Amino acid sequence: MKKRLFTPGPTPVPEDILLEMSGPIIHHRTAEFRRIAEEVQDNLKYLFQTKNPVITLASSGTGAMEAAVSNILSSGEKAVVVKGGKFGERFAEICSSYGVDVIPLDVEWGKAVKPASIEEILNKEKEIKAVFTTLCETSTGVLNDVEAIGKIVESSDTVLIVDAVSSLGAVPCQTDAWNLDVVISGSQKALMLPPGLSFISVSKKAWRKIENTNSSRYYLDLRKYHKSLEKSDFPFTPAVSLIVGLRKSLTQIREEGIENVLQRHKILAAATRAAIKALGLELFAEKPADSLTAVKVPEGIDSQELIKRLKEKYGVNFAGGQNELKGKIFRIAHLGYFDKLDIITAIAALEMVLSELGHKFELGSGIKAAERILTQES
Amino acid sequence: MKKRLFTPGPTPVPEDILLEMSGPIIHHRTAEFRRIAEEVQDNLKYLFQTKNPVITLASSGTGAMEAAVSNILSSGEKAVVVKGGKFGERFAEICSSYGVDVIPLDVEWGKAVKPASIEEILNKEKEIKAVFTTLCETSTGVLNDVEAIGKIVESSDTVLIVDAVSSLGAVPCQTDAWNLDVVISGSQKALMLPPGLSFISVSKKAWRKIENTNSSRYYLDLRKYHKSLEKSDFPFTPAVSLIVGLRKSLTQIREEGIENVLQRHKILAAATRAAIKALGLELFAEKPADSLTAVKVPEGIDSQELIKRLKEKYGVNFAGGQNELKGKIFRIAHLGYFDKLDIITAIAALEMVLSELGHKFELGSGIKAAERILTQES
Repeated sequence: MKKRLFTPGPTPVPEDILLEMSGPIIHHRTAEFRRIAEEVQDNLKYLFQTKNPVITLASSGTGAMEAAVSNILSSGEKAVVVKGGKFGERFAEICSSYGVDVIPLDVEWGKAVKPASIEEILNKEKEIKAVFTTLCETSTGVLNDVEAIGKIVESSDTVLIVDAVSSLGAVPCQTDAWNLDVVISGSQKALMLPPGLSFISVSKKAWRKIENTNSSRYYLDLRKYHKSLEKSDFPFTPAVSLIVGLRKSLTQIREEGIENVLQRHKILAAATRAAIKALGLELFAEKPADSLTAVKVPEGIDSQELIKRLKEKYGVNFAGGQNELKGKIFRIAHLGYFDKLDIITAIAALEMVLSELGHKFELGSGIKAAERILTQES
Repeated sequence: MKKRLFTPGPTPVPEDILLEMSGPIIHHRTAEFRRIAEEVQDNLKYLFQTKNPVITLASSGTGAMEAAVSNILSSGEKAVVVKGGKFGERFAEICSSYGVDVIPLDVEWGKAVKPASIEEILNKEKEIKAVFTTLCETSTGVLNDVEAIGKIVESSDTVLIVDAVSSLGAVPCQTDAWNLDVVISGSQKALMLPPGLSFISVSKKAWRKIENTNSSRYYLDLRKYHKSLEKSDFPFTPAVSLIVGLRKSLTQIREEGIENVLQRHKILAAATRAAIKALGLELFAEKPADSLTAVKVPEGIDSQELIKRLKEKYGVNFAGGQNELKGKIFRIAHLGYFDKLDIITAIAALEMVLSELGHKFELGSGIKAAERILTQES
């Protein structure tokens, strides 16, 4: 059966990138690999829109999240953590593992954080060393206004850490212009690669803090990677084949142009949302990110059955809800290697399964709404 | 130019495994991927020769080394670290990062550790919680007798941690029979895969210690992986494509049979060593491992020039010496995807370059010595 992946990571990998990664293995301590590392660094800066170094780790996104915590905070220091979904909660868990004094900012799942509430905490509590937030919270599909949060911490010593794992390259994220000190991403999302690499950009302000942190760390010690970066090198054996793929995916993104990449995601997201509404379904996220569309499971429909049928009958892989959202939502990802007709296939499969499960709507109405958007915009 | 990789990681990846990894990406939370994970777990146990769980991390080997330290030891606890090369020293560095009280056992680089000297320390010092050693020390090519060390710690609570990154699947390593509590390996060595995965087996004795450790850890928290393993799952997104490749490489190892794989490495190593001696060169390791052959650079030959010519003229990639051995040795790896004729190509290229650089010997004499071994043994 032909399979179509609409999950928010891993996402589909273009065929030419898959083949690029199947070339003979290159040794990492060679001029050949250093040239690749140099090109990758240059294009990562372009993608992150930063002049600061972007470090590549051989780990999942969680490895980079932990690197942010263990490198920036010492045990006993205070940090605000925006908890509006699974990945916000993960930041809090990691902080707790390192003895960080977490000031949780609880946000109802499905809602965006109010930047003013962060400002309020920063005004009230003294000595807050860091603020952790997601850009797109993958578990809810919500977009947070990190630009506004950047303005709040700008003039202070507080370091702003943004989890952009499922949003970088899909949603605007202007690292330097928005004062985002640390931005984290992963390979298996908008970067159109298999999982196994994570990325972390670090501002000068964050580096100053890193130099004075005493948390235990070795494999995730950003100082080691920073030092090696000067020679386009890595302190530990990098995931060579994934980095060879990364060079190609970053080149493709740069050739398309980041503005065009973001515009493409915007249109695909708008078409998906329009279709969902036309089918009489409700969006879950108050302020949805262009990476993925979270949809409330309608009354009377079993979400497990919906997802299972999509997969088994049509080869279409949607994600369900996580943790407290299990059974309540399903998620259609459209970040990375997606085009207009991919969205059509997702909506068509959804229409057919909803119809089979007895949901009342006119077949084709979702497609009609999507096509209206897809033809309007270039 | 046709390239040949004789470096002790990364090592060549078989073409069918490269192509296997270039298939469409599978989502990791699916029955399809769980079946792969299950098969991989079964075959990892076979490779490690253990009944205990073997955990797969998305990291380089150093990630698994750190996992051993941070999961097994709390700050202030005592550990003996065998320091006979770069990777022994790395264990000591990681321990120091976690506030572990390191009792170094300094071994001259190129020599193997004397198990009796470990016994002596364990008898003298009380409350030693762990012993760290390499099986094959990649930087020197030395094989350590971990079987004997296993007997020493067997009856105590001391946990034995063995870095088998460049030796598992190339050199005998009987995890359970030898009482090796923790064995660490990586994908880019005898497992014939690209870098990006590491492996760690954990004995019941080690698990008991892990439950009572207070070091900070999250991404490398083995308890999380252990719990997920029950459902053939992973706590964080695994490196899907590498694991798909792993399934294939483990199947190939199992089909060849571990005894035959080890026998193959033994013959290739013996042939390489015989050739080196026939060329009038000297082995560096007192007790060489079958993974790689470290060779002293002969008087009057510039090691940089030797390695450079091999690479540029013949496409043959040998490794130089690391740290204090820089310029003093070169290393020919023969672990993983190697056969008899691969060894012939390495020796032939070495002969031609040595001859060009003015080393005195009869052309073909290394090959003759190698062929003598390669024809004797089946």
